[in-house]
Amino acid sequence: MSSKNGMKQLFNPESIAVIGASHNPSKVGSIILKNLKEGGFSGTLYPVNPDTAPILGLKTYSSIGRVKGQVDLAIISTPAKTVPKILEDCGLSGVKAVVIISSGFKEIGDKGEKLEDDLKKIIERHGITVVGPNCLGVYDSDSGIDTIFLPSYRMGRPKHGNISFISQSGAFGSALLDWSAEEGFGISKFISYGNAADVDEVDLLEYLGNDKDTKVISMYLEGASRPRELIEMGKKVTKKKPVVCLKVGRTEAGVKAAASHTGSLAGSDEIYSAAFKQAGILRADTIEEMFDYARAFSSQPQLKGNRIAIITDGGGFGVMAADSAEKHGLKMAELSKRTKNFLKKSLVPYASLGNPIDLTGVANDKHYAAAIDACMADSKVDCILVILLLQPPNVSSGSIETLIEINSQHRKPMLVCSAGGRYTKTHTDILEDSGIPVFPTPDRAAKAMAALYKYSKIKN
Amino acid sequence: MSSKNGMKQLFNPESIAVIGASHNPSKVGSIILKNLKEGGFSGTLYPVNPDTAPILGLKTYSSIGRVKGQVDLAIISTPAKTVPKILEDCGLSGVKAVVIISSGFKEIGDKGEKLEDDLKKIIERHGITVVGPNCLGVYDSDSGIDTIFLPSYRMGRPKHGNISFISQSGAFGSALLDWSAEEGFGISKFISYGNAADVDEVDLLEYLGNDKDTKVISMYLEGASRPRELIEMGKKVTKKKPVVCLKVGRTEAGVKAAASHTGSLAGSDEIYSAAFKQAGILRADTIEEMFDYARAFSSQPQLKGNRIAIITDGGGFGVMAADSAEKHGLKMAELSKRTKNFLKKSLVPYASLGNPIDLTGVANDKHYAAAIDACMADSKVDCILVILLLQPPNVSSGSIETLIEINSQHRKPMLVCSAGGRYTKTHTDILEDSGIPVFPTPDRAAKAMAALYKYSKIKN
Repeated sequence: MSSKNGMKQLFNPESIAVIGASHNPSKVGSIILKNLKEGGFSGTLYPVNPDTAPILGLKTYSSIGRVKGQVDLAIISTPAKTVPKILEDCGLSGVKAVVIISSGFKEIGDKGEKLEDDLKKIIERHGITVVGPNCLGVYDSDSGIDTIFLPSYRMGRPKHGNISFISQSGAFGSALLDWSAEEGFGISKFISYGNAADVDEVDLLEYLGNDKDTKVISMYLEGASRPRELIEMGKKVTKKKPVVCLKVGRTEAGVKAAASHTGSLAGSDEIYSAAFKQAGILRADTIEEMFDYARAFSSQPQLKGNRIAIITDGGGFGVMAADSAEKHGLKMAELSKRTKNFLKKSLVPYASLGNPIDLTGVANDKHYAAAIDACMADSKVDCILVILLLQPPNVSSGSIETLIEINSQHRKPMLVCSAGGRYTKTHTDILEDSGIPVFPTPDRAAKAMAALYKYSKIKN
Repeated sequence: MSSKNGMKQLFNPESIAVIGASHNPSKVGSIILKNLKEGGFSGTLYPVNPDTAPILGLKTYSSIGRVKGQVDLAIISTPAKTVPKILEDCGLSGVKAVVIISSGFKEIGDKGEKLEDDLKKIIERHGITVVGPNCLGVYDSDSGIDTIFLPSYRMGRPKHGNISFISQSGAFGSALLDWSAEEGFGISKFISYGNAADVDEVDLLEYLGNDKDTKVISMYLEGASRPRELIEMGKKVTKKKPVVCLKVGRTEAGVKAAASHTGSLAGSDEIYSAAFKQAGILRADTIEEMFDYARAFSSQPQLKGNRIAIITDGGGFGVMAADSAEKHGLKMAELSKRTKNFLKKSLVPYASLGNPIDLTGVANDKHYAAAIDACMADSKVDCILVILLLQPPNVSSGSIETLIEINSQHRKPMLVCSAGGRYTKTHTDILEDSGIPVFPTPDRAAKAMAALYKYSKIKN
């Protein structure tokens, strides 16, 4: 295994060679060059193509060896059989990091396996840091690195954020990035590492564990190639920041499918669950959970205990939230006398002052402000789930302002659940933009809160 | 308990009196009158208000007794204490059905309980069919009945469809209708029945069981007031059409919250599960499940067996779908030799011809058409889950056309999973409009398919 000296250059290169950039704009290399040139990358770009007519107005080189300056990162998207020679050239030219987009390696069987072995030898010999082959590579919203060969109309690029996301599957990653962009979720770094001829999930976990821009790490995994190292690295990283992992291949059918997809020998699901537990890695069962948990960690302070207060203007949503909170290890807070007295004075006579606090369908912005304030001040409450249904006629943007103001004080974790159509979305987008995660169902919101609690136990 | 002779008039009145329609446009009665006048209702409207100046240009009556013509349905939104007298007047005037929107009855405690008892006596004496009090009432996309007092900018109205939806909670119902409108899901009838002084979930189940416009029934329930009758009615109805129920109050915390919300004595969750099983009612655990299952039933033909074929352009999504299919009682189909040979000729060499059939990221419209056709023709396949990720560059609207054409033949159930941003949504909206349910995650799609299988076993 090569050294990982080039991890810095992978995410923060000052210069990039795009090998396979083409005069045909629909080619993978051309899309990558265009994305880099028009996106956030501000360093030097070197297109490499045997035909040295300028591409996108950039001086083009016939080979990596012809580039005069230092190349920190090379992105290769040429046919598989040409890649070993090109990688060798990269090594000879002192390139620190390489992303190999090209497919046609071990994922296609024996012939590709041989080519991939060749790559490994070159990697070892030159000590280059390589992501791939057969991957989407890297997206970094901070440095503007974007090796994803999908045009932005097909796959939106998420805005800047503090969630980083490691994916063993490229298509999985691209669908999730596209979805995140649409939903307005912020991403720091994304890595699709493909066949992992060199850099794998353990290396990435280590790097992101030390990355100051990453507050929470999400992972999609079909099978760990170095399970023991993954556990050890998980132990270290989860002392610093939360790691959420969606590990698939849980059933016989799934294991078989994973073996055929990434060649992962998935191993027993129970063993993975035990390993994740040992490593402090939170296991997500679904795509929603993986992102819901990450979004909660992304913005909310640490949880000190498991006593939740639920505030709602819809009784049914309150019941569902209570069900889910209890099911996932939270406890309904016993509100203090002081809180109850305050609520009695502040709410309508038939509001429910228990927990859930049901403001009922006549709820207005003042009711929400009073209930949230009271729960924030109540020492018997560790966290607050605010169910804000915007169909009832008296709730308005005043509640949105209250939530944003209170959230900015970071006193206790607060998550919001809201469901509906356009009017709702208009308002909840503002909450999201202000760093308050909004979940479409009480169940998902309560589970995300429970994840905050689980991690607080892991960390302490 | 009164007879339910007025159920027809509840959903298909020729004339409606809106008692509590007001000269103040923000009053509940005024919003209802406006929604009826400007919505799809084509019969006669009688606003009732002591001040008989015209409201919204309509001749206004000082009391229901003053209306000359037959009133099929009256909608009451006046203060609680005035309601018994008005209901009595409705009875004397021969009104067949009444929706009482007003709150302030048994949900507020002893004083309201007394008022509600008064209502029950009047209902029995006159044999009127009453929905409410303390409810949103009825929304019927066929007849244009809309007693929901929320303006349409707050709560969108879903388009016409064949899913009917019974909700014990008003706020839950309004959030779900609003969400359905936004997502483009079609609804036939929605009923929020509030305190159920007369009409309850058993009556509604019976009515919708016989309603030719309803293909599937969704229910939100906190507690059944007539559990034995619910089981008996469930048995009858589920022989004809699927019933999906989200029953909350599953934990101690949830039971307590439900008691405080709808006064439901929820009873043991295990007993409910057993009762639903006996009744053939499919239990949903989450809001997503309730609607996912309903959407699958809404458009897809019956399932004859549990052998599923999964077609995907993203390996990871395929693995997740396989996991979920097996977990929920489906079996990965063993594709016939003929299918495999055909696929071998039609797909790229490194496509996976097992099941999931992985078209890989180079998938194009022809690959999708070939794979779907082959699975439709394969007698070893009972149903097909198509994972259509639209980030890869070669898939286009041709695949959408293929799906629509094949689905229109109704040969085997087919569900689609697709995830992403705007480009994806533009295409999946077309599928939804053409009656092909699209699910955002493989897990949800596979669970919905499993629900089709569960119901096929209940029915046969």
